[in-house]
Amino acid sequence: MPPSEEAPYTLIYWPEIPGRGEHVRLAFEEAGVAYTDTAREKDGVNEVLSRIGPSNLGDGLNPPMFAPPMLQHGDLVINQTSNILLYLGPKLGLAPKPGDQDAHGILFVNELTLTALDGLSNEVHDCHHPIGSGLYYEDQKEESLRKSKDYVSTRLPKFLSYFERVLKSKASGDGPWLYGGKLTYADLVLFQCIDGIHFMFPKALKKLQDSNDYAAVFTLYDAVKERPRIKAYLTSDRRQKYSMGIYRSYPELDVTD
Amino acid sequence: MPPSEEAPYTLIYWPEIPGRGEHVRLAFEEAGVAYTDTAREKDGVNEVLSRIGPSNLGDGLNPPMFAPPMLQHGDLVINQTSNILLYLGPKLGLAPKPGDQDAHGILFVNELTLTALDGLSNEVHDCHHPIGSGLYYEDQKEESLRKSKDYVSTRLPKFLSYFERVLKSKASGDGPWLYGGKLTYADLVLFQCIDGIHFMFPKALKKLQDSNDYAAVFTLYDAVKERPRIKAYLTSDRRQKYSMGIYRSYPELDVTD
Repeated sequence: MPPSEEAPYTLIYWPEIPGRGEHVRLAFEEAGVAYTDTAREKDGVNEVLSRIGPSNLGDGLNPPMFAPPMLQHGDLVINQTSNILLYLGPKLGLAPKPGDQDAHGILFVNELTLTALDGLSNEVHDCHHPIGSGLYYEDQKEESLRKSKDYVSTRLPKFLSYFERVLKSKASGDGPWLYGGKLTYADLVLFQCIDGIHFMFPKALKKLQDSNDYAAVFTLYDAVKERPRIKAYLTSDRRQKYSMGIYRSYPELDVTD
Repeated sequence: MPPSEEAPYTLIYWPEIPGRGEHVRLAFEEAGVAYTDTAREKDGVNEVLSRIGPSNLGDGLNPPMFAPPMLQHGDLVINQTSNILLYLGPKLGLAPKPGDQDAHGILFVNELTLTALDGLSNEVHDCHHPIGSGLYYEDQKEESLRKSKDYVSTRLPKFLSYFERVLKSKASGDGPWLYGGKLTYADLVLFQCIDGIHFMFPKALKKLQDSNDYAAVFTLYDAVKERPRIKAYLTSDRRQKYSMGIYRSYPELDVTD
């Protein structure tokens, strides 16, 4: 049975980092739609662990899940960041709906989201964990430095150039947004990625910003930050601080030459 | 204007490797639906390059694209492997349709696909390119060995365990498939990932297979391989050989202890 549209939304994610859960939070916050965030509840860690543990086989509707974030809505439990946003986007007014005139717009929003997550989130995580996500940073520091140098000098400019190109394309429409002249969740994802990179590589990102080659990307960043609900959220205690998640502050990795 | 359902399908991908394009090929082959594959055409490389070059700004409908695979269908050009499959799956009978009784099934098929690509494709690529995708393997051999050791001893078993758990879940239904008792494109994706890992880490994978801890995963692999159209495809000259793509044969990385 599909969930009633009135069912409450629950985000299930690790406490104490914004992480990939943040992309889901920003969608709810921009839409002004209420949600429960287990990261802020007592026993939040166990809520995650019980869902991904080896004895959890899901149920007749939902397959078991590999890792958070997860979204519970009625009977549905949905996993994978881009997949959660694909489900939520049209409901929250943050992506074209299947019945809209722009029936395929959701595919483009999903495509832009996947590329942002690939290049500006997953690859950034690998800058401090290039050898193994289960090993300590201290055990892969040298490799992290090599990876970070490559990332900020070649990969980061490549992805920023790509999004600059998207923002200059006809399909992006008017205004600062990536697709169709309207704010979509892909814009929120790109904002969050740039924000995280700003935390992890402040000097390297500043240098790229100062080059003025990516002016449209930074205009989008500012435009999201100034959205009234996002602005209020970012200064609220609902916004988790960066710590030991995807985006980490290791000043030795913030190389500019 | 959305594409007519009769419009021809064109896959745009790098020549001479199965790569991420292979997931799209397997969907067409299993469905018995005709498609053009630019990888097999004269000038196939330039077809890709012209689509991702800095001067390509897409058009009024389609944003520019970051990297292949891409699917052209009528006026639409869709990018990102999982996104192409999300579009094609219901059309090819390889995923529930939005109007089906199982209206949210497509989300689960997408979720399983994303997890397979994360853990059994992207992470495998990083085993021979942990430092930079633009650097030579020879310049990151030591790091590749460390990464591969971690991958085959911790990450690969973790992902295989996860899919074993999915296959034992109620949501997987009867038979060898991941979701809903029917073959979906998620099964084809998992098959292709295991096949590639078999090429890259034959000894390490054999050891995991012999443990019998992942019997359902290997049963699925065999069941896909025996599908009549897939079987015919795999022995045809349409199937590209593994070479210097995601899955590479570097025997020194195939460690078993």
